[in-house]
Amino acid sequence: MLRRLLLRHARRLHYSSSFSSALPLSSPTFAVFGANTGVGKTLVSAGLAASLLRSHAASPSAVLYLKPLQTGFPDDSDAGFLYRRVPALLRPSHAAHLAASIDTLSPAPSVETQSPSREEAAFSYDGEGEAVRKLLACRTLYAWREAVSPHLAAEREGMAVEDAHVRSLLAACLVEGENLGKGEGDVWKLVETAGGVASPGPSGTLQCDLYRQFRLPTILVGDGRLGGISCTLSAYETLLLRGYDVSAVILEDHGLSNNKFLLSYLRNRVPVLVLPPIPEDPSDDLTDWFSESSSVFGLLEDALRSFHLTRIQRLNSMQRKSKDLLWWPFTQHNLVPVDCVTVIDSRCGESFSAYKVKDNKMMMIPQFDACASWWTQGPDSKLQIELARDMGYAAARYGHVMFPENAHEPALRCAELLLGGIGKDWASRVYYSDNGSTAIEIALKMAFRKFSLDRGILLDSDKSIITNGRNIQLKVLALKGSYHGDTLGAMEAQAPSAYTSFLQQPWYSGRGLFLDPPTVFIKNGTCTLSLPQAIQNCHLSPGDKCFPSLAEVFCKTRDSSSAADLYSTYISQQLSEYSLSSNTEHIAALIIEPVIQGAGGMHMIDPLFQRVLVHECRDRKIPVIFDEVFTGFWRLGVEVTVCFRVARLLT
Amino acid sequence: MLRRLLLRHARRLHYSSSFSSALPLSSPTFAVFGANTGVGKTLVSAGLAASLLRSHAASPSAVLYLKPLQTGFPDDSDAGFLYRRVPALLRPSHAAHLAASIDTLSPAPSVETQSPSREEAAFSYDGEGEAVRKLLACRTLYAWREAVSPHLAAEREGMAVEDAHVRSLLAACLVEGENLGKGEGDVWKLVETAGGVASPGPSGTLQCDLYRQFRLPTILVGDGRLGGISCTLSAYETLLLRGYDVSAVILEDHGLSNNKFLLSYLRNRVPVLVLPPIPEDPSDDLTDWFSESSSVFGLLEDALRSFHLTRIQRLNSMQRKSKDLLWWPFTQHNLVPVDCVTVIDSRCGESFSAYKVKDNKMMMIPQFDACASWWTQGPDSKLQIELARDMGYAAARYGHVMFPENAHEPALRCAELLLGGIGKDWASRVYYSDNGSTAIEIALKMAFRKFSLDRGILLDSDKSIITNGRNIQLKVLALKGSYHGDTLGAMEAQAPSAYTSFLQQPWYSGRGLFLDPPTVFIKNGTCTLSLPQAIQNCHLSPGDKCFPSLAEVFCKTRDSSSAADLYSTYISQQLSEYSLSSNTEHIAALIIEPVIQGAGGMHMIDPLFQRVLVHECRDRKIPVIFDEVFTGFWRLGVEVTVCFRVARLLT
Repeated sequence: MLRRLLLRHARRLHYSSSFSSALPLSSPTFAVFGANTGVGKTLVSAGLAASLLRSHAASPSAVLYLKPLQTGFPDDSDAGFLYRRVPALLRPSHAAHLAASIDTLSPAPSVETQSPSREEAAFSYDGEGEAVRKLLACRTLYAWREAVSPHLAAEREGMAVEDAHVRSLLAACLVEGENLGKGEGDVWKLVETAGGVASPGPSGTLQCDLYRQFRLPTILVGDGRLGGISCTLSAYETLLLRGYDVSAVILEDHGLSNNKFLLSYLRNRVPVLVLPPIPEDPSDDLTDWFSESSSVFGLLEDALRSFHLTRIQRLNSMQRKSKDLLWWPFTQHNLVPVDCVTVIDSRCGESFSAYKVKDNKMMMIPQFDACASWWTQGPDSKLQIELARDMGYAAARYGHVMFPENAHEPALRCAELLLGGIGKDWASRVYYSDNGSTAIEIALKMAFRKFSLDRGILLDSDKSIITNGRNIQLKVLALKGSYHGDTLGAMEAQAPSAYTSFLQQPWYSGRGLFLDPPTVFIKNGTCTLSLPQAIQNCHLSPGDKCFPSLAEVFCKTRDSSSAADLYSTYISQQLSEYSLSSNTEHIAALIIEPVIQGAGGMHMIDPLFQRVLVHECRDRKIPVIFDEVFTGFWRLGVEVTVCFRVARLLT
Repeated sequence: MLRRLLLRHARRLHYSSSFSSALPLSSPTFAVFGANTGVGKTLVSAGLAASLLRSHAASPSAVLYLKPLQTGFPDDSDAGFLYRRVPALLRPSHAAHLAASIDTLSPAPSVETQSPSREEAAFSYDGEGEAVRKLLACRTLYAWREAVSPHLAAEREGMAVEDAHVRSLLAACLVEGENLGKGEGDVWKLVETAGGVASPGPSGTLQCDLYRQFRLPTILVGDGRLGGISCTLSAYETLLLRGYDVSAVILEDHGLSNNKFLLSYLRNRVPVLVLPPIPEDPSDDLTDWFSESSSVFGLLEDALRSFHLTRIQRLNSMQRKSKDLLWWPFTQHNLVPVDCVTVIDSRCGESFSAYKVKDNKMMMIPQFDACASWWTQGPDSKLQIELARDMGYAAARYGHVMFPENAHEPALRCAELLLGGIGKDWASRVYYSDNGSTAIEIALKMAFRKFSLDRGILLDSDKSIITNGRNIQLKVLALKGSYHGDTLGAMEAQAPSAYTSFLQQPWYSGRGLFLDPPTVFIKNGTCTLSLPQAIQNCHLSPGDKCFPSLAEVFCKTRDSSSAADLYSTYISQQLSEYSLSSNTEHIAALIIEPVIQGAGGMHMIDPLFQRVLVHECRDRKIPVIFDEVFTGFWRLGVEVTVCFRVARLLT
């Protein structure tokens, strides 16, 4: 009856693609990956399950064994193997108290016609009327007939399955697994993968990638044969390159002591266990082997239990410790209650896995990263892995090498890509900086130098600038509300604001002329211009103020509108007044964030105003800096300098 | 005769451990790695060698096949296989013009007693008096009797070999290989590894690590069997995680289309070739198979040739392109002749591999990184790989996640390590910054805030500081010649110098009181104090000026010496004069580089002076900043703050 309940539940979930895959963490869940196919993953699963079900104080009330992808079904059925063999590995007194179940949720059509139906295939022995104390639930999620890789079977048997469905069904099974064993104790869950770590799933996605978002702690079944050290370490590295934690390595003894080598190579950081040689005689029912192996499986159980407890303990402590030991940037710590600290276990694509405790239940919850971690997170989950691999490659190839007077591929290739991409037609060289803020400071230095050289006011002899015998001060032209980073110098290029007070910039003086920009806001599909007070008095026609779409706002025909004249007059006036007010101060650079100013709101500046501004500066030979830290690299959906169409105006 | 010459040469080199391993690049050299043992590396080497030796315009004058590590010898001899089989794969007319040789440089004692001597084993057919046009040289470097992994064979047969010796002998063979074929054309070199990519060499070092410093472009022989996709991709990733470039993947067809999947997964970036099924009958001499495979080997040859040419072309262009497209930091580009640009292909441990062309010969030359890439490069070659793997892991697990109000393992664990390590006993929290320069700016903000709060001069209402109705300016106390980074704000904390001129810091005003520090120089083992002019007039005893060792310079007994009094007086006087000179300026932080000032020389500051300075500031409740960007993290051989013994004086 329990089995039918589960089955009904799982079926419903199977068709609910919006299922939120919160993963319960209260009881231990492990993935079983193999260094290769045929290394004994199922024997390990069976031995571990039997070990867990043997009665002692800390033993679980249930073991849920999941085989998400099974090919060669029903002749090959790893769930079937556990269902048949595990009860036989227990002492009769234990077996009598065991309820075992088996089912297959989603067999391919080719399977259904040839195998007994799920209802018939499933049975359980219920301890002859006694109270059921333990449960072993063995479940196959998807099954195909042919004994080939799932991606081939899916293609040949016409049952393609999307990755999202596999994940959703697996998550559903893990969630409902919590209810097994009547909630009286732990439910250990084992998820046995198919083939090797990087064997493809039905869609062709590698299994290590397919299950990555769950980041289940992993039992890696290694290879004890000749060449097995290499296979095992490579598989281990493939798992690490997906962010998995390997909690134990276990492998069959082939007399080559591969386990000793592996343990030493892994510096004892991962337990490496060795199983007795598996009898090659196919008629051997392995009873003796399992009996010989039981102490090893006991060690495996201990290692996994300890791994699980350590992990949970750490996760539970992280909110408090982080609040106590870290200074977060841009944060008033007193305003962050300790239970509001988000514990991020990992990310996959657009979502974090966040650890939460709700109603005393520990869970890993996918949490959408709505701000893309402050506009820094681009790649989807597949590219994320390519990026990780490339980073590993570059780190291994170069470690760290110094840059001045040297050439190396990453710097050169990146420069070529930048110059052929966003820098096309206007940029000729690349200067690498550490971050946006220091990039702005570098741009300011470049602009000031260009300005000074153009005017002949740079005296190369002592590298200072002097006009008419007086030292002159170079300033920027910038827009109010703009933001260019948090280093002390970059902050000088922004107008006085809450961000420039003593605590943020103790040496702030505001080295610039800061103009009030007109902004554009969108309401009910209509874009409306909002003029600052300084330009307010003048009259613009409704056509110059309201636009049916963003495209009209950006339209180049506005360059000859009365708004353009208005802006031009305003800017010229401001620049004249400024130069009249001081003989020693010069506006030596314009710095703007094209299109959007993102600090303290998302303010769209009228692009016409920025175009006119750039034009006025170009006329006066004032270098222009586009600060695209926030808007560049297609973050607005297009190349910003191209969208803005002023790239070629740069002096 | 040629063979004897080679042999003599190689033997000599074998015993020369100081051999500089400059690698010739003029002709193509490839490593043959396997996804597993038994996937057909030797068949691929043989097929490729035969393809290369078949006569056509672009064919090489010689093929050098190297098997650095051979176990199961002489029954198993991959060099012997090539030596016997390759000539037979050529048409008789080609074979007649082929000279083939075979030798084994360093067999284990267990081998020598049981196998024919090297001289006897080696023979060649010389084309019956005709001019020798082609050469096939097959060479085994180290050989052991037992057919197990080299690390086990080395242990069991008592012939341990150090990694350095394997590398040195391999390099020697590659160098002298250039002279094969009478220098009339390319000499293709193939280095066939043993077992899988991560199979251990004789010392236990994984082969992918053992050969890493050569970074030979790699032919990966994949696995076409069930599970082979996983093995092949994992092996591929293991190679990438060592910085190898895989130039081609080739595998046997087992009817599973593994090659198609691999090609699609690798996005066509690496050629993936498939060989016909290898006959399983051991009596088959594979003549038909090689004949069937010849077109595939032709494709492999083309792919490798193209890879090699593209690589060389790129390397040759990098000096010019880097000079044209990059801005290097701290560099006047006009002073760097294009042929002085160092092309760094990779690094391994303390050395770069630098690409050089000398006398028209292209080479990869190990170049010692004497300045540790400006004090940033720490790990040795083994830790470098662990670091690369950890970076790959972290990148895969987190991608990029935002920090404020979040907890995640890398930030928390690193904080714990810092607080328990260099921050022990004095630090309670960690603030992460991007680089040294911005870290200094953050420290300045923290110090100024502490100073202002301590004096009650910070008005929280508007976050500005006002005393007696006047805005006050906060300044630093610092030492002349010190350097704290290149952001505009950090530069304000250093004394005027060549580094603070207009081109470096257009807004520089020097916001501090800058003291002349006494320095210590070491000559003939004696440490001598050098006093600046400001302290010069006073008289110190010779014992206060000269020290027999550095330990005396650091000795705490100096705290009660007359030098300490002298320093204290000087510092107090400077501070008093400064505070008298202005009502609105306050010294609000001391910033020093403990022990060594590293910009524009390596100036050791008298540690007594710095101790006194810190003491004087503590007395006045002026916060102290130790800038350890240059000297921290044990770069001086000890923890700097600990060595300096003033950590607890920090306010």
